[in-house]
Amino acid sequence: MRYLFLSLELIGVVAFSVSGAMVSVKKNMDIFGVSLLGLVTAFGGGILRDCLLGATPPVFFTNYWMILAGLSAALIVFFVARILKERYFSNEAAIEKINNVFDALGLGAFAVTGAQIAMEAGFEKQWFLVISMGLVTAIGGGLMRDLMLREIPFVLNKRIYAIAALEGATLYYILRLLHCEQIAAALSGIALTFILRLLATRYNWNLPHPRKEGK
Amino acid sequence: MRYLFLSLELIGVVAFSVSGAMVSVKKNMDIFGVSLLGLVTAFGGGILRDCLLGATPPVFFTNYWMILAGLSAALIVFFVARILKERYFSNEAAIEKINNVFDALGLGAFAVTGAQIAMEAGFEKQWFLVISMGLVTAIGGGLMRDLMLREIPFVLNKRIYAIAALEGATLYYILRLLHCEQIAAALSGIALTFILRLLATRYNWNLPHPRKEGK
Amino acid sequence: MRYLFLSLELIGVVAFSVSGAMVSVKKNMDIFGVSLLGLVTAFGGGILRDCLLGATPPVFFTNYWMILAGLSAALIVFFVARILKERYFSNEAAIEKINNVFDALGLGAFAVTGAQIAMEAGFEKQWFLVISMGLVTAIGGGLMRDLMLREIPFVLNKRIYAIAALEGATLYYILRLLHCEQIAAALSGIALTFILRLLATRYNWNLPHPRKEGK
Repeated sequence: MRYLFLSLELIGVVAFSVSGAMVSVKKNMDIFGVSLLGLVTAFGGGILRDCLLGATPPVFFTNYWMILAGLSAALIVFFVARILKERYFSNEAAIEKINNVFDALGLGAFAVTGAQIAMEAGFEKQWFLVISMGLVTAIGGGLMRDLMLREIPFVLNKRIYAIAALEGATLYYILRLLHCEQIAAALSGIALTFILRLLATRYNWNLPHPRKEGK
Repeated sequence: MRYLFLSLELIGVVAFSVSGAMVSVKKNMDIFGVSLLGLVTAFGGGILRDCLLGATPPVFFTNYWMILAGLSAALIVFFVARILKERYFSNEAAIEKINNVFDALGLGAFAVTGAQIAMEAGFEKQWFLVISMGLVTAIGGGLMRDLMLREIPFVLNKRIYAIAALEGATLYYILRLLHCEQIAAALSGIALTFILRLLATRYNWNLPHPRKEGK
Repeated sequence: MRYLFLSLELIGVVAFSVSGAMVSVKKNMDIFGVSLLGLVTAFGGGILRDCLLGATPPVFFTNYWMILAGLSAALIVFFVARILKERYFSNEAAIEKINNVFDALGLGAFAVTGAQIAMEAGFEKQWFLVISMGLVTAIGGGLMRDLMLREIPFVLNKRIYAIAALEGATLYYILRLLHCEQIAAALSGIALTFILRLLATRYNWNLPHPRKEGK
């Protein structure tokens, strides 16, 4: 059980750190900036969640193996880009596609673990809080990364991103309420987020906009 | 008494959610982005205040009626804009004027309730904290909205905005210190903020700038 | 002992408030905006640290002498710029050089006091948390200032900025672990940060980037 959640978190940390590092490499940040933004993307959501739940200091700061995993992932991106140079930058689109798959997996994993942590903290009756914590854990890090890089946060733009996390956390919460086994609930929540994200990317799904002619 | 503060908060939530939604609609965000930014604008200040006071999880997350009010306000803006289309967008200036009046009311209401909550939390002796919490509650949400939309926060630009909230909270605090009745103190604080804001908009009041030649 | 840390903090507060005010004056903010950004730059890092450590409300809000010092520093910058006008703006580069020296001192002072506060809060065994709190205290305020002014945070750009704070906090922590006297440890940590920053500015040191051709 514990191992399941640890593996999920590890997937999320690595995927998000890679995505944070890739965006920083594109902006030609130095090695420290790339590491910092990798860590912020991977852990920002969890830190925010812990602050909101009053679980201070956030668990991140004593979670040495996770820090090491996130840092290594960011540094690998940095050195791969630095060594391969043009070969990296001309294939960025391809790399980003692979990264998207991991990101979708990480999104689901963080939505479920965030909801789980809120439930464990004694708020299992407060559905809105539980689901919000899933959402905050899943999108908080990406939001911070985009704020620091002065991008409009893509959680506000990218079709079916935040909403996929929201639905994954909701499904997990409902299944747990129905006394579904934790492992089955977790895998269902992650699968829902993952599939929604991939289908949305594949088929260009959009939520309704005020003006139809698009952005 | 309780009803007074509930009504004040409701006015603030609706006014701020409408203003957050209007800005997002102007940027043609999708329905989820509009809802999220409405909620962030309406509740961001209160969430920040609760975190600073250590009152976690912030009361927002269990305040279902307020959430519903904020969400409905944002969605109404979204659908009005979507249905009316050009008629909405060509009359935006007029709508914004109406919104400004509500916003001034919300600003005052949040400044007073923020100060009140800090006093109830046992800090009634610490004037700077009480007044700061009024300010944070009043301008925090708008600040987050502007950060997420990559605008220079207009609390830093708009003449006499933050300062009106600051003075409303200060007046409320002083009147309470003088054992003035809570309802009279609250209404005075709100009236001060409201009138300052409207006069400042009407007569283009400005605080001094380093260079006179304006913005 | 207490006096040492008070003086260090005072230097940090004044230096950071001046730097926040100078950036706001350059953007021609009004007197309230300049004061607010001065205070945010000076105290933002400490507020963030206290929230992360669960020490709420943050000590800033009851630290009246420090608030007064920070506010005065920001207002002096405002009035100097307003009175001298062209003479101020044409000599900004020179002023900024002086400010850089203070900023380096403040950076070191905040890195050390941040680490010290985390240790006093009972986390002296958790090296990553202690050093992180030094870093957060030192760079948090500048980060918030840059976010609010819509700049790419220069902690991500400026060579050897965050890393100087990191190394100062680390040195302080290691010396304390080795039972070095507090005053010697503090001065060593500050000196390391200070010298690293000044050397990096003087000799244009850079950390490695993914693409060599620079930004």
